[in-house]
Amino acid sequence: MTFDHDDKATPAEELREEDAGPIGQEFALEVEGAIALGDATRVHELVGGLHEADLGALLELLSHDARPRLVELMGADFDFTALMEVGDATREDILEELPVETLIEGMRDLESDDAVAILETLEPAEQAEVLEALPAQERVVLRRSLDYPEDSAGRLMQTTLVAAPPFWTAGRVLDFFRETDGESLPDSFFEVFVVDPGYHLLGTVFLDALVRAKPLARLDEIMQADRRRVKATEDAAEAARLFERYNLVSAPVVDESERLVGVLTIDDIVDVIQEQASDEILALGGVNPEEELTDNFWWIVRSRFTWLFIYMLAAFVTSSVLKTFQAQLEQMVALAVLGPMVAGQGGSSATQTMTVAVRSLATRELNRGNALKIIFRELAIGAVNGAAFGLVTGTVAASWFHNVGLGPVMALAMFTNLVCGAFGGVVVPLVCDRLKFDPAVSSGPFVTTITDVVGYSSFLTIASLWFHLN
Amino acid sequence: MTFDHDDKATPAEELREEDAGPIGQEFALEVEGAIALGDATRVHELVGGLHEADLGALLELLSHDARPRLVELMGADFDFTALMEVGDATREDILEELPVETLIEGMRDLESDDAVAILETLEPAEQAEVLEALPAQERVVLRRSLDYPEDSAGRLMQTTLVAAPPFWTAGRVLDFFRETDGESLPDSFFEVFVVDPGYHLLGTVFLDALVRAKPLARLDEIMQADRRRVKATEDAAEAARLFERYNLVSAPVVDESERLVGVLTIDDIVDVIQEQASDEILALGGVNPEEELTDNFWWIVRSRFTWLFIYMLAAFVTSSVLKTFQAQLEQMVALAVLGPMVAGQGGSSATQTMTVAVRSLATRELNRGNALKIIFRELAIGAVNGAAFGLVTGTVAASWFHNVGLGPVMALAMFTNLVCGAFGGVVVPLVCDRLKFDPAVSSGPFVTTITDVVGYSSFLTIASLWFHLN
Repeated sequence: MTFDHDDKATPAEELREEDAGPIGQEFALEVEGAIALGDATRVHELVGGLHEADLGALLELLSHDARPRLVELMGADFDFTALMEVGDATREDILEELPVETLIEGMRDLESDDAVAILETLEPAEQAEVLEALPAQERVVLRRSLDYPEDSAGRLMQTTLVAAPPFWTAGRVLDFFRETDGESLPDSFFEVFVVDPGYHLLGTVFLDALVRAKPLARLDEIMQADRRRVKATEDAAEAARLFERYNLVSAPVVDESERLVGVLTIDDIVDVIQEQASDEILALGGVNPEEELTDNFWWIVRSRFTWLFIYMLAAFVTSSVLKTFQAQLEQMVALAVLGPMVAGQGGSSATQTMTVAVRSLATRELNRGNALKIIFRELAIGAVNGAAFGLVTGTVAASWFHNVGLGPVMALAMFTNLVCGAFGGVVVPLVCDRLKFDPAVSSGPFVTTITDVVGYSSFLTIASLWFHLN
Repeated sequence: MTFDHDDKATPAEELREEDAGPIGQEFALEVEGAIALGDATRVHELVGGLHEADLGALLELLSHDARPRLVELMGADFDFTALMEVGDATREDILEELPVETLIEGMRDLESDDAVAILETLEPAEQAEVLEALPAQERVVLRRSLDYPEDSAGRLMQTTLVAAPPFWTAGRVLDFFRETDGESLPDSFFEVFVVDPGYHLLGTVFLDALVRAKPLARLDEIMQADRRRVKATEDAAEAARLFERYNLVSAPVVDESERLVGVLTIDDIVDVIQEQASDEILALGGVNPEEELTDNFWWIVRSRFTWLFIYMLAAFVTSSVLKTFQAQLEQMVALAVLGPMVAGQGGSSATQTMTVAVRSLATRELNRGNALKIIFRELAIGAVNGAAFGLVTGTVAASWFHNVGLGPVMALAMFTNLVCGAFGGVVVPLVCDRLKFDPAVSSGPFVTTITDVVGYSSFLTIASLWFHLN
């Protein structure tokens, strides 16, 4: 992906007007119609002026068959960067259908990072075919990027960049820019990398520093030496953390031997950040983050089932606890009516704690340094709210069943469960994190089991003792 | 906040080594000690070289009293931008304690957007005092920014920018940069804004375009006209959406009369995006997003209580449903044991659906265009998994209680609840969204109530009919 330098105002304005963006259902249908008729000129009229992002939004709305047809009809005018703006499912969908020639045609104009993103989604055979068809020099670069592990900085990075030797002067660099044709320069760039003959990174000069410098100033005089660099093999998520923490807009990417191989820009990082947030949200909701990327019905059913199956096992544990109290439940059915409330409140309160814990683990606000402090804080919150809700629900229960005894029983059980829930809510994520399981994924079932089991058993035990049930 | 141009590699390297970042508990204690002794030189040794982000991390770890003392001891060497890297609570904490003089001293070196962020957190009286002490021209700019609504683009924007008339040539602009001293230029910038005498935005020239242009090319020849612009009064979240959608790195900010008043840069937007994600995660977990920003114990207790209170009302609804089935529960205690399983599985499955719906509403993947399609998909998923879990739990229940009848009863109820849960899980967020309530905040209690009520009542009704209970 590259920064957007040639954006028209209109779609943005519309975007602000109606939430769905400039591309509405109606427009999609109109395009669909033109495609059905194979009316290339009409398609050009409708789609020609669109920004890549809007073209992407359109592709998402089109029917399975219409998508590749659109690419065909647009021919050379189809902007392949639009394929960066659609979901992985849609992209695969389109790429599968496209004839290799069209693909190769389209790849020519792509920045290296976008080209890599497309090659990633191709079958090995097709991938090789496309690579063969590309100019040797491009091919080498793309092959190298593809050699880096998935989701690594090496896959995300942009390989076309501006590098110059340390002895060049600011003036000479500016002349160089004026003389070289646009082709050999990146579509957009913010800095000049200063490298030695072995292409080892010595430092960088941002354009705003360059234009401020005296024409005769040598680059090694105005460059920042030892700027933060990202290893190509490093996880993109790690790189994202670096960008966030130090407010970087771009970072040089180097290989094992500190040689400059590319540049990471913040717009790619923004996508990484977005994805991380999505993954955390979905995981907390008991959904496989991968689900976003597919529209395969049975895949979704299976992945949801797996997760629910774990919750079912937890539910069985709860029910077996209840089963051991059958006699007491029979003697006093009120307990069967009120039990779910104790368990439920504990669950809700523990979920609050868990969510805070998981989030602050993700943002690194919760760490070994302050873990104990947070645990105590959560216990205190649980105790206070446990007492409060114990009072409220106890009173209601007692008057509801005209049984004074139910008051203290309910109150005690509620208090116990909210305190235990608070403990579990913060300790479980911490343990998951320590054991290198993703807390967002693993915490849920444990925490609910804790509050269900503690909720029911404490309530029924206290009740049995109080009312001498057996 | 400004892009980081002067970052040292070391902290980053360390950052990669240990998750907690370069600033560990031990280091904090060492600094704390030096502060306690009032040993300014030692403090300078320890803290002097730190990057603003690391200095911020350090401040977070220091004790309440040590924080302002550190600022005092560092004197003019304290980098106030570090206050942008700490939580709001900590920032207020420090600013309250600081003498106004120190504050005014520190404000001088700040970029306008950081200055605004600090002024926001001051008491009106103190704010006025600080503003008075600042140079008239700065004061005017800051006052204007503060006049914009909270969380608006106008508060986030950077007001120092580079603007030039359309008739200037690329060469002239470059000369201008070389001649003007750094002070009057922004610390970092990417583009030159082309404005008319009335300061209306005509277009922009990115630095990489500028350095590529022929020296005699006029700005209005090389500029992009009608670039996307953000209204200063617009919500920052809206601006963020624009940046994301069109991969912008910066955007001009204009006032009502289309006059250029500032520039938004992507690093500020990244913070906005982060915050939105955090808010959504916390809201889904039944936590007030504001909680991140405070460490006031009683505030947290209250806000958690409020949320739990709503869940309690939901729990009462559930219990009253159970109460109406007391007779049946008494006759057949197995129902009291198995009921929670039906309700629980429905809840988990509905939460999956709800999470997906809320997320895709946030990312705009779910909209009026495809709402119906998604609803049907979720219903289908609910039906399939409902049948599956009905089969499993039904079989277990029947054998568990040596009562064949419990099998079909359990299965039917489970199926009903998962289908209803799926429906509620997607429809409730859609309705909230349509009614302009935040779906992440409002959906939870409704959805759990649905699955609890439907779960218990369907299970108990079907059981009553099957076993002729009354």
